[in-house]
Amino acid sequence: MPKVAESTVRRLSLYLRFLEEFEEQGTATVSSEALASRGGTTSAQVRKDLSFFGSFGKRGLGYQVAELASRLRQILGLGGRYSVALIGAGKIGTALFEHHGFRDRGFDIVAIFDRDPAKIGSVWSGIAVSDVAELERVLTANPVDIAILVTPADAAQEIADRLVRLGIKAILNFAPVQLNVPHEIAVRTVNLVLELEALSYALTNR
Amino acid sequence: MPKVAESTVRRLSLYLRFLEEFEEQGTATVSSEALASRGGTTSAQVRKDLSFFGSFGKRGLGYQVAELASRLRQILGLGGRYSVALIGAGKIGTALFEHHGFRDRGFDIVAIFDRDPAKIGSVWSGIAVSDVAELERVLTANPVDIAILVTPADAAQEIADRLVRLGIKAILNFAPVQLNVPHEIAVRTVNLVLELEALSYALTNR
Repeated sequence: MPKVAESTVRRLSLYLRFLEEFEEQGTATVSSEALASRGGTTSAQVRKDLSFFGSFGKRGLGYQVAELASRLRQILGLGGRYSVALIGAGKIGTALFEHHGFRDRGFDIVAIFDRDPAKIGSVWSGIAVSDVAELERVLTANPVDIAILVTPADAAQEIADRLVRLGIKAILNFAPVQLNVPHEIAVRTVNLVLELEALSYALTNR
Repeated sequence: MPKVAESTVRRLSLYLRFLEEFEEQGTATVSSEALASRGGTTSAQVRKDLSFFGSFGKRGLGYQVAELASRLRQILGLGGRYSVALIGAGKIGTALFEHHGFRDRGFDIVAIFDRDPAKIGSVWSGIAVSDVAELERVLTANPVDIAILVTPADAAQEIADRLVRLGIKAILNFAPVQLNVPHEIAVRTVNLVLELEALSYALTNR
């Protein structure tokens, strides 16, 4: 599989959303222009993004919706299920846990950790919140594919180090720090303040 | 001001975080290598990012921490305060409202909207939740700089259209759709499912 940019992967996800809406409506084919409008991009970009992964579509006929959706799910590694550990059971952690979109797309939160004694032992939809000190014991007994890190900044790197030692290969990081992990570990960082600062920049430099 | 990529703006925010930590520690100068490690990048990239905005630092001496931090705050449009409307008072909206990082960086949520009668009229830290039907009345009386959109997918575009008509120039979008707005409106979309799909892609294509 070729090494493709994160922005390409993001657009593939958006194209897949659109194709799935088309599938629900019973639409059989879609043009690269229609996919482009969904991804906020151009039809040339759509053709380039898809060309990384082989030949799709016929000139003048567009793409077969069901076939392309199926191929994109395969490329994105969807279709199966991933088990996920949530580390940090505060407000944002709670909101993520209750986010139906995760389960709908195949991501199951199966373990929850916190360091707050008031939270440890409480049960969320059948999952007991574990002490983060028990991370190794719990995740060795029941390994997960992905960790979602929603800790304060000062705790994040130490926990990331422990997750890497546990063999976890993918981290979704909400802590406001840049994690330092081996390059083979996939990390996506969502930093809400940085997003607002990008808007501040845009407002200032119009 | 030059047109710079979103990824550059993001790194500037990260450099600023690091410089502020150095300021707190009383460190006077910092090398491009040290800034690079914080931004997850190279020293050549740091020098290139900063070169967009003029000449900083002296060869062999590094950057003056206080001077560069001040300049980055200016470039990013920070230092003043922005008023923010939160549209959608569900779980994620609540978590965002209680996120101290926003206020700390100058972003004040001053209006909250929802369409749920059970939420309308409830008071959050002194701010009454308004009916989203009242968006025009409330935001005309008390204009805001930025809107944070945390609505279901099916409501997001209609509300974005109304925000644009109200003259709002910047939207932080958590709804799982690509908003269609005029190009002069700054939009940042945080799509949590897409972030997990990027990890799924990485796990599948290692």
